[in-house]
Amino acid sequence: MNNLENIIKAINGSNDFVITSHCSPDGDNIGSSLGVYYSLKKLGKNVVYVLDDTIPLNLRFLTKDVNIYNSEDMFNKDYVLIALDCGDKSRLCCKEHIVKNCSKFISIDHHASNDAYGDLNYIDIVASSTCELVYNLLTEMTKELDIDIIDEKIATCLYTGLVTDTGNFSYSNTNPSSFLMAYHLAKVGASRDEIIQNIYQNNSVNYYKLLGEALNTLQIIEKKVSCITLSLDMLKNNNIDFNDVDGITTYTRDIEDVEVGLLFKQKGPNEIKVSFRSKNYVNVSKIAQKFSGGGHIRAAGCTINDTLENAKNMVIKEVLNHI
Amino acid sequence: MNNLENIIKAINGSNDFVITSHCSPDGDNIGSSLGVYYSLKKLGKNVVYVLDDTIPLNLRFLTKDVNIYNSEDMFNKDYVLIALDCGDKSRLCCKEHIVKNCSKFISIDHHASNDAYGDLNYIDIVASSTCELVYNLLTEMTKELDIDIIDEKIATCLYTGLVTDTGNFSYSNTNPSSFLMAYHLAKVGASRDEIIQNIYQNNSVNYYKLLGEALNTLQIIEKKVSCITLSLDMLKNNNIDFNDVDGITTYTRDIEDVEVGLLFKQKGPNEIKVSFRSKNYVNVSKIAQKFSGGGHIRAAGCTINDTLENAKNMVIKEVLNHI
Repeated sequence: MNNLENIIKAINGSNDFVITSHCSPDGDNIGSSLGVYYSLKKLGKNVVYVLDDTIPLNLRFLTKDVNIYNSEDMFNKDYVLIALDCGDKSRLCCKEHIVKNCSKFISIDHHASNDAYGDLNYIDIVASSTCELVYNLLTEMTKELDIDIIDEKIATCLYTGLVTDTGNFSYSNTNPSSFLMAYHLAKVGASRDEIIQNIYQNNSVNYYKLLGEALNTLQIIEKKVSCITLSLDMLKNNNIDFNDVDGITTYTRDIEDVEVGLLFKQKGPNEIKVSFRSKNYVNVSKIAQKFSGGGHIRAAGCTINDTLENAKNMVIKEVLNHI
Repeated sequence: MNNLENIIKAINGSNDFVITSHCSPDGDNIGSSLGVYYSLKKLGKNVVYVLDDTIPLNLRFLTKDVNIYNSEDMFNKDYVLIALDCGDKSRLCCKEHIVKNCSKFISIDHHASNDAYGDLNYIDIVASSTCELVYNLLTEMTKELDIDIIDEKIATCLYTGLVTDTGNFSYSNTNPSSFLMAYHLAKVGASRDEIIQNIYQNNSVNYYKLLGEALNTLQIIEKKVSCITLSLDMLKNNNIDFNDVDGITTYTRDIEDVEVGLLFKQKGPNEIKVSFRSKNYVNVSKIAQKFSGGGHIRAAGCTINDTLENAKNMVIKEVLNHI
């Protein structure tokens, strides 16, 4: 399935590229996209970055100098399309013509759900992050082309995804190789303090107020399951954007005896986004799939179009079947 | 000042050792002490671990199979005393006779305040943690003795201190070498999941209730300083031990525009423990020293024997002088 050699050949043999990823962008999504974007630019290629979504506040330090296109403003043809970190073709954050107009489609990803939808694929579900796969790709290309591709800027992008997808090297997807990658990126000069400060140390006072209210909603169900609920009103009253509260999910998991933590976020009166985390043995990706979602074994998500109450009942019932 | 070679000679030439560290033990304190303890045992030495304090709940997974002596039960003489991670001789967590009865005193530490009080010293204030210094020492000894000293158990101890003192590789004391150390410890088989789950993912529901209440006390002073207050009553009502709330300190720092975060913990009616954190430029160790405390540039602490209100006023006034 994997064909790193042919991917490198396709990159070397082409001049025009489009980069994209999944919607609701996170650190690994943006970090891996920009890692490839800057590398291709450095190699003298034409690159367009397409993403039909807004960048979360805490990741804008990465994108501030980059022109991100909306699908509707992009009419190029005959480019190599590279999809980063997107586990499902239907989750691509671009319109259909972006895929239709490409001459070759490359998927680089670490999601278990990825069915190798690209013409060329580099998929490794054991990798910590898509950024680690991009790092491997760039390391191979560096050897082959004898050009030092990874500079401070690219290292900063890749380090961001490594940090966010491993929860600062704390999740079980952190492999020994992740530390070796971190060592190299740190030596090259990744702006680690800037990354940490932007992502974790830049909370608003309102966010902390919301967090306090969120902790008040904490419920423990049969000792092993916990859930926190964020209603539309809570977000509105504290003036916090829906895309800026994902960090609260970890609180649901980090409780003694709890195996599965659930965060219910109300996006609309009948639109509930559910985030799943597990600690040791429950495959939450499978549970999320039952509700047309997906993700990883220990971190997954889905959207349910129903009331908050119904969504909670359905999901908790399903989770208890896996405990 | 540093004499790693002579420290290795002293270890090789002696059979009896006592290990100790500072009071209010944390991950680096216990991790580095046990790293040395198990290594000496492995080399066939007699080792006694002395610490006149209780081990925090979340670190007991490390000490559960270890006999920790109280100074008053230890009357040996003529041993090599090794103090780990103790930046000040007066903070040693043992009685005077433990120091008086040793034949040689070794200090291994990374605190800037350490005045090389040992007969032999290995002090590096740029090191991430004392565990990193112990790792360097054991790596040197491994080369010299041609014995693989660092096994899974020792790797687990050292990884614990590395993780807790760098806040999961997020603080600015994380050096490239810290990642190389993490890589080696991970390859040897450090129980990383066990460490992370015990230290960060094992919170009680009461702890989260306390955290919610703590966030309600959050104050921002002149945009750059923030403080959270934990009164005796808050700890008592939620049934949380004084030694188990240090994690709340990070919330004071992780706020936009804030440079110095302060946590005021009431231990007794007139005994206030203050934890300091800074983000970019304020040396909080210097501020803590004004109140007879100490620590590192970005993380320090002191105890003030006064009312909560007076302690807050004094400390905030002093901090504002440094902003």
